[in-house]
Amino acid sequence: MGIDLSQFIRNKAFLDKVVSAEEAASWIKDGMNLGMSGFTLFGEPKEFPLALSERGKKEDFKVNLYTGASLGPTADQSMAEAGIINLRVPYQGNPVMRGKINNGEMFYIDQHLSHVAEEVRKGTLGKIDYAIIEAAAITEDGLIIPTGSVGNSPIFVQEAENVIIELNTTAPKEYEGLHDIVVLEEQGKRREIPMYSVGERIGEVGIKVDPAKVKGIVLSEQPDIPSPLFEPNEETQQIANNLLDFFAGEVEAGRLSESLAPLQSGVGSVANAVLNGMKDSQFKDIEVYSEVLQDGIFDLIDAGVVKFASATAFSLSKKRVESLGEDLAKYKDKIVFRPQEISNHPELIRRLGVISFNTPIEVDIYGNVNSTHVSGTRVMNGIGGSGDFARNARITTFVTSSLAKGGAISTIVPFVSHVDHTEHDVDVIVTEQGYADIRGLAPIQRAEKIIENCAHPQYKQQLRDYLEEAKAKVGGHTPHMLDKAFSWHTNLKENGTMLLGEKVTK
Amino acid sequence: MGIDLSQFIRNKAFLDKVVSAEEAASWIKDGMNLGMSGFTLFGEPKEFPLALSERGKKEDFKVNLYTGASLGPTADQSMAEAGIINLRVPYQGNPVMRGKINNGEMFYIDQHLSHVAEEVRKGTLGKIDYAIIEAAAITEDGLIIPTGSVGNSPIFVQEAENVIIELNTTAPKEYEGLHDIVVLEEQGKRREIPMYSVGERIGEVGIKVDPAKVKGIVLSEQPDIPSPLFEPNEETQQIANNLLDFFAGEVEAGRLSESLAPLQSGVGSVANAVLNGMKDSQFKDIEVYSEVLQDGIFDLIDAGVVKFASATAFSLSKKRVESLGEDLAKYKDKIVFRPQEISNHPELIRRLGVISFNTPIEVDIYGNVNSTHVSGTRVMNGIGGSGDFARNARITTFVTSSLAKGGAISTIVPFVSHVDHTEHDVDVIVTEQGYADIRGLAPIQRAEKIIENCAHPQYKQQLRDYLEEAKAKVGGHTPHMLDKAFSWHTNLKENGTMLLGEKVTK
Repeated sequence: MGIDLSQFIRNKAFLDKVVSAEEAASWIKDGMNLGMSGFTLFGEPKEFPLALSERGKKEDFKVNLYTGASLGPTADQSMAEAGIINLRVPYQGNPVMRGKINNGEMFYIDQHLSHVAEEVRKGTLGKIDYAIIEAAAITEDGLIIPTGSVGNSPIFVQEAENVIIELNTTAPKEYEGLHDIVVLEEQGKRREIPMYSVGERIGEVGIKVDPAKVKGIVLSEQPDIPSPLFEPNEETQQIANNLLDFFAGEVEAGRLSESLAPLQSGVGSVANAVLNGMKDSQFKDIEVYSEVLQDGIFDLIDAGVVKFASATAFSLSKKRVESLGEDLAKYKDKIVFRPQEISNHPELIRRLGVISFNTPIEVDIYGNVNSTHVSGTRVMNGIGGSGDFARNARITTFVTSSLAKGGAISTIVPFVSHVDHTEHDVDVIVTEQGYADIRGLAPIQRAEKIIENCAHPQYKQQLRDYLEEAKAKVGGHTPHMLDKAFSWHTNLKENGTMLLGEKVTK
Repeated sequence: MGIDLSQFIRNKAFLDKVVSAEEAASWIKDGMNLGMSGFTLFGEPKEFPLALSERGKKEDFKVNLYTGASLGPTADQSMAEAGIINLRVPYQGNPVMRGKINNGEMFYIDQHLSHVAEEVRKGTLGKIDYAIIEAAAITEDGLIIPTGSVGNSPIFVQEAENVIIELNTTAPKEYEGLHDIVVLEEQGKRREIPMYSVGERIGEVGIKVDPAKVKGIVLSEQPDIPSPLFEPNEETQQIANNLLDFFAGEVEAGRLSESLAPLQSGVGSVANAVLNGMKDSQFKDIEVYSEVLQDGIFDLIDAGVVKFASATAFSLSKKRVESLGEDLAKYKDKIVFRPQEISNHPELIRRLGVISFNTPIEVDIYGNVNSTHVSGTRVMNGIGGSGDFARNARITTFVTSSLAKGGAISTIVPFVSHVDHTEHDVDVIVTEQGYADIRGLAPIQRAEKIIENCAHPQYKQQLRDYLEEAKAKVGGHTPHMLDKAFSWHTNLKENGTMLLGEKVTK
């Protein structure tokens, strides 16, 4: 390959371990548990899963695949296509894999991202037979330097019987120094997590590994995998403006300062628009304490809006992937990547007083949120870290368009068809119509505010009718007509729209 | 009264503040926010709320009442009957008050118990006009010594504009020394909570108060209010045995030791039976890290099963109330009461690795839990601390009989009519039929296990039929027929039973 491997493998104990991806893949046996690096397509091994998938086309075996979060085409998709996954934990976002899950061809546990490390440590997911970790380098001290995500790699490496390192020789060398790695002791024997501000470093630059456990090093030259670029449009901009209005009100009320509180944001167009909208806002010197950093973070740092960002992974567009080495050098004092157990830990989210905003599939009039299941049955991606943040945040907000599918769907419904975040955990709902601050409100008051401030005019009267009829006919603290609670969803299924009494003909 | 007040009010700055309950009640204005001590009927003021309720019969005013948790007949009930409550936060359990809430005569916010202090600190519930705190004494240092609960009293005292102390001269003097009081700094400015084992003390024996804020001291001779005694019966004993079997399995698998992990238990007959059942079990030297201590705790300490118990309140039967002074003296090195912000704090629950067991109203086949609403509409008590524990526990269990109302209700249903704990948070379901350990299982696997292990034989086939039909007709990751998801509840309403096709004639 013409490269000097000693630049990347700087500890001699590892130099003789290089093997082909095919050889590494041949070690995997039916029923094994694999703990793989990777989160929002960044930091996942590529050559190994491709080789394992190839083997899967000829041989009959299945593995259980545990990761940080979603993997991309070379891992989740190729392994799903090869039919070699029995169980997937804790998150996925690949259309091919999603199809297999919803068709009952593989199992999936949709788990809070902060919980995986605890479960692995306790052994409730079985022992990790192989950890497979993408690395930018192995240091003189024998630390594995991760690439564009940390995820669950540290706990996988610690608990695994065997480790395979996929060394990516095209990864920006500037990844080194980005990470802050710490692994918690078992519950009941641990101390506090000694972090009191977003920018503090409490660990090491890489993942400690016993060289004896490293069974092989696979070489890769495959670049980081970009995600689609989400450009703001008029609607996402309006949603962002409404959220910023809410923040401005909190500042005015003296409950927040102009640096707000550490921000967590979900991934996608709305989240990107909100961050983008902050460039022209009153807010400055903001700290980001999140799971994923998207393209916008670099501009926000340049604009002086964000002063520091902590996360566990990148999700970047093609353009930013291309300049990532330079960006990492430029922003190295402003960004840190932590294990997802730390980025999403309730102790830290509560202590720091994080403000969270995430995007739901649907929200109901009482403030319950569905983040995962279309019509209660087909899973989209998963709850991800939204529950880690929503449950422990200082202010928990959900931001969405009030309509989907060109108006056939209202994202505000009488009763969500799956509950991922309960009414007890949700503080503010934001749509392009406005925002509903439901803190300090009883259920019926919440319903009135969500309907009037957030629902689309097309569905407002229908929501009011449901609430009034439920109050009159059933009553109670949280009025519902259980025989009609899902009538909007069944109408959508039968007639193609949530508008009752209408029918969409295709 | 013939008592020497200087025994109780040991700091001179407080001695001239004694007023009648009527005078203190006269200070309250329409629209005020009252922060009152009290949790599971223990530690609530009695003379003050009775006087305020009397005033409410003659005058037109309403207040917002914030507490630790449920108050009893002299407070929640008398104030509800007098119609002087606009909004109640965060928990109640009084039948009269419940009726008013469900009839829309007052507002109620059913809030996680660990969240109240944060909301008060941030001001999102408005400022506290008066804190009204039952006390056993005021020390030389001017500390308020609480009685049988701590609840939210420390934050109420800190944040209130005015404080009224209801000094209970009949409270056991042995209450002094029971409490460990600490108030957290605001989010973003706080350090860790420096507690690493259940028995550690990190605060003071009483609540610090600025004497200038204490507007009055009301005297009371009303004894602590007992709760009904829950004697185990054959069914609760079987539920307890099944939970103990699960624990034994965890010990066998090497995931727990015979001292288990710190235990949190809900209140009531099943919780009492579980604790009772531990007396004859293999488990010993257990630590309790809970919200409420019931009668059984004393016997368990005597039996060497429990070595230390931390909570925020007592809930005791008449017999134990009568001997409480002696018990407090005897067990003073084995029990501590903390503010509910600490007893229920995610940082500590996660660090200590607490095992939680709570009792639901109903559970669905995928593991979602309803803890609060009968048929989705009428609130019973509230979520209390169950969410604080369930969300952050090492193992989250829910324990219930599989039937209610003599078999008219199955507590295992296709779709719970209200979600308080999501499928992502629930680990083990226990009924008198057995237990379902749903950790590491995908939705359909969970459903099969819950139906086969936990449902009553009377409803088993009906549950199997729902699942099979949903899989066949709809499919998906979490198969549901939304048009039939609540058919059991609507059948109950129309025909008096969840048995489809049957009708109960009264």
